Amino acid sequence: MANALRVGIAGLGTVGIGALKILNQRANELTLSAGRPIRVTAVASRDRTRDRGIDVSQYLWFENPVEMAGSPEIDIFVETIGGAEGPAHDAVKAALKAGKPVVTANKALLAKHGAELARLAETNGVAIAFEPAAAGGIPVIKALKESLVGNRITRVSGIMNGTCNYILSRMEAEGLSFAECLKDAQRLGYAEADPTFDVEGFDTAHKLALLTSLAFGTEVDSDSIYVEGISGVTPLDLKMADELGFRIKLLGVAERTSQGIEQRVHPTMVPKTSQLAQVMGVLNAVSIQADPVGELTFVGPGAGAGATGSAVVGDILDIARGANVATFGRSAGALEKPVRAPIRQHEGGYYIRMDVKDVPGAAARIATRMAERGISLESILQKGSRDRSTGGTVPVVLITYATSEAKLREALSDIAGDGVLEGDPQAIRIER
Amino acid sequence: MANALRVGIAGLGTVGIGALKILNQRANELTLSAGRPIRVTAVASRDRTRDRGIDVSQYLWFENPVEMAGSPEIDIFVETIGGAEGPAHDAVKAALKAGKPVVTANKALLAKHGAELARLAETNGVAIAFEPAAAGGIPVIKALKESLVGNRITRVSGIMNGTCNYILSRMEAEGLSFAECLKDAQRLGYAEADPTFDVEGFDTAHKLALLTSLAFGTEVDSDSIYVEGISGVTPLDLKMADELGFRIKLLGVAERTSQGIEQRVHPTMVPKTSQLAQVMGVLNAVSIQADPVGELTFVGPGAGAGATGSAVVGDILDIARGANVATFGRSAGALEKPVRAPIRQHEGGYYIRMDVKDVPGAAARIATRMAERGISLESILQKGSRDRSTGGTVPVVLITYATSEAKLREALSDIAGDGVLEGDPQAIRIER
Repeated sequence: MANALRVGIAGLGTVGIGALKILNQRANELTLSAGRPIRVTAVASRDRTRDRGIDVSQYLWFENPVEMAGSPEIDIFVETIGGAEGPAHDAVKAALKAGKPVVTANKALLAKHGAELARLAETNGVAIAFEPAAAGGIPVIKALKESLVGNRITRVSGIMNGTCNYILSRMEAEGLSFAECLKDAQRLGYAEADPTFDVEGFDTAHKLALLTSLAFGTEVDSDSIYVEGISGVTPLDLKMADELGFRIKLLGVAERTSQGIEQRVHPTMVPKTSQLAQVMGVLNAVSIQADPVGELTFVGPGAGAGATGSAVVGDILDIARGANVATFGRSAGALEKPVRAPIRQHEGGYYIRMDVKDVPGAAARIATRMAERGISLESILQKGSRDRSTGGTVPVVLITYATSEAKLREALSDIAGDGVLEGDPQAIRIER
Repeated sequence: MANALRVGIAGLGTVGIGALKILNQRANELTLSAGRPIRVTAVASRDRTRDRGIDVSQYLWFENPVEMAGSPEIDIFVETIGGAEGPAHDAVKAALKAGKPVVTANKALLAKHGAELARLAETNGVAIAFEPAAAGGIPVIKALKESLVGNRITRVSGIMNGTCNYILSRMEAEGLSFAECLKDAQRLGYAEADPTFDVEGFDTAHKLALLTSLAFGTEVDSDSIYVEGISGVTPLDLKMADELGFRIKLLGVAERTSQGIEQRVHPTMVPKTSQLAQVMGVLNAVSIQADPVGELTFVGPGAGAGATGSAVVGDILDIARGANVATFGRSAGALEKPVRAPIRQHEGGYYIRMDVKDVPGAAARIATRMAERGISLESILQKGSRDRSTGGTVPVVLITYATSEAKLREALSDIAGDGVLEGDPQAIRIER
């Protein structure tokens, strides 16, 4: 039997400990699958005294992950520290320079430095594997990097943040406000004390940037992602969505358009009958549209020790079996510079909700403004008459046929100028 | 750049031509992904004159696939001939003996000869890849063989035959009979002239046998699969299922039980809210329950040139990149002999529909017989009174709590002995 693969794990939080437990508990099966033992030899973490529910005293201990990266006692470097800069970035570079393959769960790091790190990996004859970095336990990175290369991918869309999906699911089921559901999510450990990164869509954007690169053979380009979170979604929007046959999900979407590659993260109305609409609670899901295979959807747990640990171990196994697939599926030099399609050129349908002042001719005014910009309406709903709680306004909901974001913004600005609205209109993009 | 990988394709039907088209159309992208060109150099088929919608005159032509398998002009043998015996079996053996890796779409071949062929592959230092053999375009073989090895898999269940799912979907949506929907499926090309292999569950069983081996690390054991098709499902069953909150799907299920590994294919009641219940028409889906990752579900096209061609090309790409993963995920000698759990030991809930003679005390008699065998009833439905069309009988539907198949059969036999039934009772297993 071949030599053991010696693993060093940097970061002993949820992901690192999750992987460590699996490597211990499934050691025999992993040896059979890899054709060689996979053995953790070293760990890196600052705090040696913390109780992690597992004995780590048998491993070489490094306070500095950069030092572990260069140690002759490890063959592969597993990075679960997190953060786009600092120790994670330094240690991954050090491991690659030392000719050691890297497995990382760090989406922020790759979203920011992916192109640079892929080049460095290649120069040193190794690769970076990152299944745990997007959609946790769902093997969608491998699907894009390996299984689907025969296809021309046209679109990737996904629910990739369990916190947001949990909040939206509860808001829908119970008619609660965003703030109430967020509080519950924090109590249950589904949301951080500062939830901005999750609920404002940045976490999803990082994951989307990685999937986009793999799907379209382009350099990671997280700066060009349009990002909008779920904090502005109201119970009324969810109720209206339900009546119109939709659910609201925070989606990350990357697609080829005639303008280039469009990447966007925002609350989205999806038909109730779609696969993504069925995904409730903290689950994640990714749909891929590809030619000639068609549409594939993967659903599963996106976070937690079990899900991310499973993904880390899958990547380690590949490397133990001798895989050395280029970080983003092809040589770093062969990744194209992405042509960005700006969100103003997005084409699609919209849900618009406005609080309209109850004055004669207001609705006619709105419809006229839309028509002037060439926007056709699929439906108009006016719920009840005057809403007492908003002081004499009437909620009006429009569903538009496909139009461009630029035209829509102009029409909404025209309508605002007419002084018939109370507050700002709500606009949610529709994906069919 | 490394040498080209020279591909020989045996069988120029849907799958072979599907793969050939992709290899031509995506040649540049595949070269970038593989780091070397992937070039078809030879094809094998008996009929040279048939129009296949693509020019195949540029390839070396073999009438005998066994000859192509041994040709020095190919590095990898792609088998899309089909059939468990004969030329497919002979040619795959010849390719392996010549030290050539094999990609095959042939579930019947592997379901029958999987263990033998895996050993032969290993002896010759190569492997058999078979992503197209189960669930077509869905990369579930790779997920089990590579991504999920860190997990202890407890259950695999799937909708793996598009013909059956199409028929059941239409029966449900339109209240039509099995025979009517089968006719339509044949007209649309979704079902063969002789549909037995699909509708009686044998196709699903072959696919299940392969997933079972990968999931549990056991030798392929298709002989121990309990198989029951969908031809006995009636529109009334689908209507009752709907009222009770279920859909009926033909599932292949493999699970660990205290008795061993249970493998079964049968019409199954699944809750409408489950992921599998959302899968309609010719789509396929596979759900995997694994510890610690949790439950993963994959949905996508299971058949057709695009789906199977995509899977073939994914496998070829892996081999071009140097992968040599053991056929069933671990050394053939390390595959365990499966301990079979017979269907009579199956534990679960049941839907029972009976045509009960409208005589005093019939219902009480049935309930008593169930109780005598220790079977608890979750619900009893008696729809309408006397059904004129069945000549004075009343349809009675029972939903049982979990019980054993053996007990249920005994109870049904007791009830039949009481002479209160017209015809045989319908029994459909429930999966929650």
